[in-house]
Amino acid sequence: MADGLTAAVLAVGSELLTPHKTDTNSLYVTKVLNDLGIAVAFKAIVGDDRAELTSHVVHALARHRVLILTGGLGPTDDDLTREVVAAHLGLPLDEDPAIIEAMERRFAARGWKMPAVNRRQAMVPRGATVLPNPHGTAPGLWIEHPPSHEATGGKRYIALLPGPPREMMPMMDGDVRRRLEKITGSVRLHRRLVRVAGKGESMVEEIVQPIYSQWLNQSPPIVTTILAGLGQVELHLVMQSGDQAKASQTLDAAVSDLATALGPDLVSTDGSVLEAVVGDLLRARGWWVAFAESCTGGLATSRMTDVPGSSEYVERSIVAYSNRAKIELLDVPEALIAEHGAVSEPVAAAMAAGIRKRTGVNVGVAITGIAGPGGGSEQKPVGTVCIAVDGGETRVRTFRFPGGREMVKAMSANWAIDLLRRYLIR
Amino acid sequence: MADGLTAAVLAVGSELLTPHKTDTNSLYVTKVLNDLGIAVAFKAIVGDDRAELTSHVVHALARHRVLILTGGLGPTDDDLTREVVAAHLGLPLDEDPAIIEAMERRFAARGWKMPAVNRRQAMVPRGATVLPNPHGTAPGLWIEHPPSHEATGGKRYIALLPGPPREMMPMMDGDVRRRLEKITGSVRLHRRLVRVAGKGESMVEEIVQPIYSQWLNQSPPIVTTILAGLGQVELHLVMQSGDQAKASQTLDAAVSDLATALGPDLVSTDGSVLEAVVGDLLRARGWWVAFAESCTGGLATSRMTDVPGSSEYVERSIVAYSNRAKIELLDVPEALIAEHGAVSEPVAAAMAAGIRKRTGVNVGVAITGIAGPGGGSEQKPVGTVCIAVDGGETRVRTFRFPGGREMVKAMSANWAIDLLRRYLIR
Repeated sequence: MADGLTAAVLAVGSELLTPHKTDTNSLYVTKVLNDLGIAVAFKAIVGDDRAELTSHVVHALARHRVLILTGGLGPTDDDLTREVVAAHLGLPLDEDPAIIEAMERRFAARGWKMPAVNRRQAMVPRGATVLPNPHGTAPGLWIEHPPSHEATGGKRYIALLPGPPREMMPMMDGDVRRRLEKITGSVRLHRRLVRVAGKGESMVEEIVQPIYSQWLNQSPPIVTTILAGLGQVELHLVMQSGDQAKASQTLDAAVSDLATALGPDLVSTDGSVLEAVVGDLLRARGWWVAFAESCTGGLATSRMTDVPGSSEYVERSIVAYSNRAKIELLDVPEALIAEHGAVSEPVAAAMAAGIRKRTGVNVGVAITGIAGPGGGSEQKPVGTVCIAVDGGETRVRTFRFPGGREMVKAMSANWAIDLLRRYLIR
Repeated sequence: MADGLTAAVLAVGSELLTPHKTDTNSLYVTKVLNDLGIAVAFKAIVGDDRAELTSHVVHALARHRVLILTGGLGPTDDDLTREVVAAHLGLPLDEDPAIIEAMERRFAARGWKMPAVNRRQAMVPRGATVLPNPHGTAPGLWIEHPPSHEATGGKRYIALLPGPPREMMPMMDGDVRRRLEKITGSVRLHRRLVRVAGKGESMVEEIVQPIYSQWLNQSPPIVTTILAGLGQVELHLVMQSGDQAKASQTLDAAVSDLATALGPDLVSTDGSVLEAVVGDLLRARGWWVAFAESCTGGLATSRMTDVPGSSEYVERSIVAYSNRAKIELLDVPEALIAEHGAVSEPVAAAMAAGIRKRTGVNVGVAITGIAGPGGGSEQKPVGTVCIAVDGGETRVRTFRFPGGREMVKAMSANWAIDLLRRYLIR
């Protein structure tokens, strides 16, 4: 990252130290800082405790020139961020009449009178800039310390932001970003997100490592991060540069190299999720799809319909949980189930053919499997799942997924949608 | 919490400082610490950087007597936790032949030879206790500092745990918990989790605040935390006590007071999730259910089937996304759709009746709505959803959910399952 300008991020609030909740604001804060080429050296989460918070502010500012604090700007006694930062920097707090007025207007608009306790939110460390908060009562604060223009070398840049994400985010991406941009100059982070399906993290790593390791030697380098989810792998490409056009060109070429190496496992190069990519493929052909789901219980169709406009290609689905439902609704021959078992390739194929014929859609997708924890056998252990796609031609595959019930459901739904994608791009 | 014994939790790893990923290990660590009456004073997330990590270890141990570190115990050069802690405490690192042997066995079992780089994981700070890791190569470490028995007053307790959750969790809940128990004595945290549906966070707060505020004055007090999710509210009751039987009795009485105040909005007092509670109600009656879903696209059925054994009461479901599917599969009269629109109480009722009659199940649940972002009108804006339950008697309700497509889907599925629950307990 740029120029050795490093940042610390502090999240303030005792509720963030419980077993149920943690800070997530710092992810958004980190993204904005990284965009500007500022690396985050550490993040800390501190309760509403004056001594502890003071100690962390001191520790952060001793080591890093940018400090972003979120939370602790509320009107009550345990909201200490403002006081602690001001005290550490030796800045007196002055009441700002403009903030009082804005808060009074905000309360009046709802027909309420401003509670006296809110006056606390109008206290501003001397010399700080007030960052307006259109989404709440607590304004943000921006402090450059020391304030004199000569002392740029070791100057500290401190932002105090409200805790609620919908108040924090626009402030971080607006006022704070603009102020930091002036300090960091024109260098920016440029990104690409490539999605891959059908291969595990280590298999993708094996394919792409020889490619991305080359990128580290070029100037400026592209840094690649691999993240794995359930049946999906993401490649994040990040490059720091002051030349927007050149960065775009370099990243386009890099993504194109990945696409060649990954072949049909490549889902998208623009960040589009699998279900949206499949939706676009269906729409391009003017095709309708219907799912026949057993062990996934509707999850595959639910994912397909997470995409706005999916009613243009998802017509209906059947969740055939019982054998009777498979026979009645999907015309699976009873003898086929008796012979091969409900979790078998012939039954999956019959389910896909059944929903396609019954419904008159162009392509049917069927999923039948054992999600567990019960129902497994030696021959067909928990995690055994058969998936069929029938669009005239039939394709069937059997999987053995690891993990518990929810993981088997999620992996099955993902593979069903991905097998449909592979059918459509063949 | 007990005796002023406070803890710091450090998560180590540069990937935890990206915009995509953050530490979640500390939630589990916090739960175990809180169980033992040890409060977490702060959490920090630090990259694989020797100077930064050292500074945080120094800062933590200067202020707190318990320090739990996760991550940075791997075999590569950027795994620094072991070295940094040992260096700060002035402890030399000795190679432990037993660890080498265990790792060699682990590799041999897969037919591999142990890479030389793994020797690093066998280095033990002198005087530390090795915590075995049955799920990976990196053993954990437990350090009491200074080691002499006299210095109990200011003694520090430090655990170094591997980063992968499936390796960290059993170690934290096993070896580390047992060692901390010896220090904290018999005082424990006792908990209850009460789930509520059908009311927002502030409405629940209004009902229960007069009750739980009383609990703060009793000795020992019960501390209540309210957490809100999509259409669901959780009340966490926590009480610290050395008397297990008395704590149980006190919490039972407290939960019973909440149950009386909340009436039918109370889902469970033992932490059971909504879909499991509904499953138990169906099973107790010997009833079968089928869903007819439109805007939720299968999500309600998928949630119902997240529960093991749900095939005992979920028979099938229809995702009738198009009007044609509603007419063909659910016998909704075409004229009814023409007159009232697909998103209307009469159509919802007809869908529920249709699936119930077609399928022969005891109760049918139907959901039809506008998930958005398109499809809304002035009279029926995005978020308008009609839900019907038909178990002989028919109940229908119309909702206006806020938020985007995924939130409308999630709220609709939750309410559909909750209306079924209310039908079953009436």
